[in-house]
Amino acid sequence: MTYRLYYWPGIQGRGEFIRLALEDAGARYDDVLRHSDEFSLPKSAAIFALPYLVAGKTVISQTANILQYLGPRLRLAPMNEPGRLRVHQLQLTIADWLVEAHDTHHPIGSGLYYEQQKREARRRAADFLAVRLPKYLDYFEGVLQRASGRYLLGRACSYADLSLFQMVAGLRYAFPVTFGRLEKRFPRISAVHDRAAARPRLAAYLASPRRIAFNRQGIFRHYPELDSPGKKSKKT
Amino acid sequence: MTYRLYYWPGIQGRGEFIRLALEDAGARYDDVLRHSDEFSLPKSAAIFALPYLVAGKTVISQTANILQYLGPRLRLAPMNEPGRLRVHQLQLTIADWLVEAHDTHHPIGSGLYYEQQKREARRRAADFLAVRLPKYLDYFEGVLQRASGRYLLGRACSYADLSLFQMVAGLRYAFPVTFGRLEKRFPRISAVHDRAAARPRLAAYLASPRRIAFNRQGIFRHYPELDSPGKKSKKT
Repeated sequence: MTYRLYYWPGIQGRGEFIRLALEDAGARYDDVLRHSDEFSLPKSAAIFALPYLVAGKTVISQTANILQYLGPRLRLAPMNEPGRLRVHQLQLTIADWLVEAHDTHHPIGSGLYYEQQKREARRRAADFLAVRLPKYLDYFEGVLQRASGRYLLGRACSYADLSLFQMVAGLRYAFPVTFGRLEKRFPRISAVHDRAAARPRLAAYLASPRRIAFNRQGIFRHYPELDSPGKKSKKT
Repeated sequence: MTYRLYYWPGIQGRGEFIRLALEDAGARYDDVLRHSDEFSLPKSAAIFALPYLVAGKTVISQTANILQYLGPRLRLAPMNEPGRLRVHQLQLTIADWLVEAHDTHHPIGSGLYYEQQKREARRRAADFLAVRLPKYLDYFEGVLQRASGRYLLGRACSYADLSLFQMVAGLRYAFPVTFGRLEKRFPRISAVHDRAAARPRLAAYLASPRRIAFNRQGIFRHYPELDSPGKKSKKT
């Protein structure tokens, strides 16, 4: 079966978390909107937002839900229920983290331009970098420490590890100064990034034109003014 | 088996979505932190944030993940995989909606006081009420219309319906003016709220002291200045 993925063609965004799993597993998939604007959906399929995945007759939306479906099928998640709950819980925490990374540049409204919320973005980004980001990094570093293996669940790579790779890649792009400094304190997370990037199929994908470059339309955005360590946000 | 729920004792918060499912199903559970400050966890259980649920040897966190685990066991979700994916997808969309409802009063940082981000909160709440809230309501009204039954999946009540009840209850509390007006356009959503509230075990729960009242420490908060329809946010 060929999976069909529907996601915005110009950004990595949430779709990238799905792409990484499909690519790492060597699954056959069609990234439909990259080459077509066919956007038709069965009427019964209620979709709030992209991405969605079509697998035969099944239409699934919500990134973490798609990964949960794909996980055991792509051998990127345990087969047993406790293991599946555990990797999904990690994925949902990454999803929370991702929203907060996004909201650094869009703290007021996702339908407004960055320029319309630049002042608020400076405050939110400062809080994210000083408070929230270290909290997430602490958490995942702790999970890795307890797992005492190479990946979040221990020995085997799961889709949550590929998502953690993506978080590190995105944060390096968006906040090179602050995250670059911070990352040194979390060697296990950096190691997961490097291990994932070195997996043969993932390495081939990352070097291919299928990997869209980070840019200022995506979730991770580089605005130098938001990446200013030590600068206090103005009291307002 | 008696489930043990761990959640902040003074607010409804995310824990309430779990409580509603347990109460509606008549499940035996201990809302541990309501009567004890015992907070111990197995060392292997990595928890980023409350709530978490202990079910025998299983420790689960992330609200939607807990509900996914409980769903089939409490007869509040289908047993088959497509049905479970579908109800979970709805729940994850409610989780996204809930974060946006929360961020109306905390758009800059969850660790800061409301008073420290009041100006930004006005802008974010205005965008939420004008743009995002109607989008979510449209979506769930459409799901109900297509289901052409009494609940989101059709005939049977699922944990996502109980969560939709909670969203309506919370929005009525937080934004009585704006949501009160808006809700009239979404009669199917209101009907789910009323049907859920009339289920015998849920009605008994809502009338009991186990139901914590909404308050200004929770996710849904009533600040009259954020509930001002028609007022434009200042350009900044």
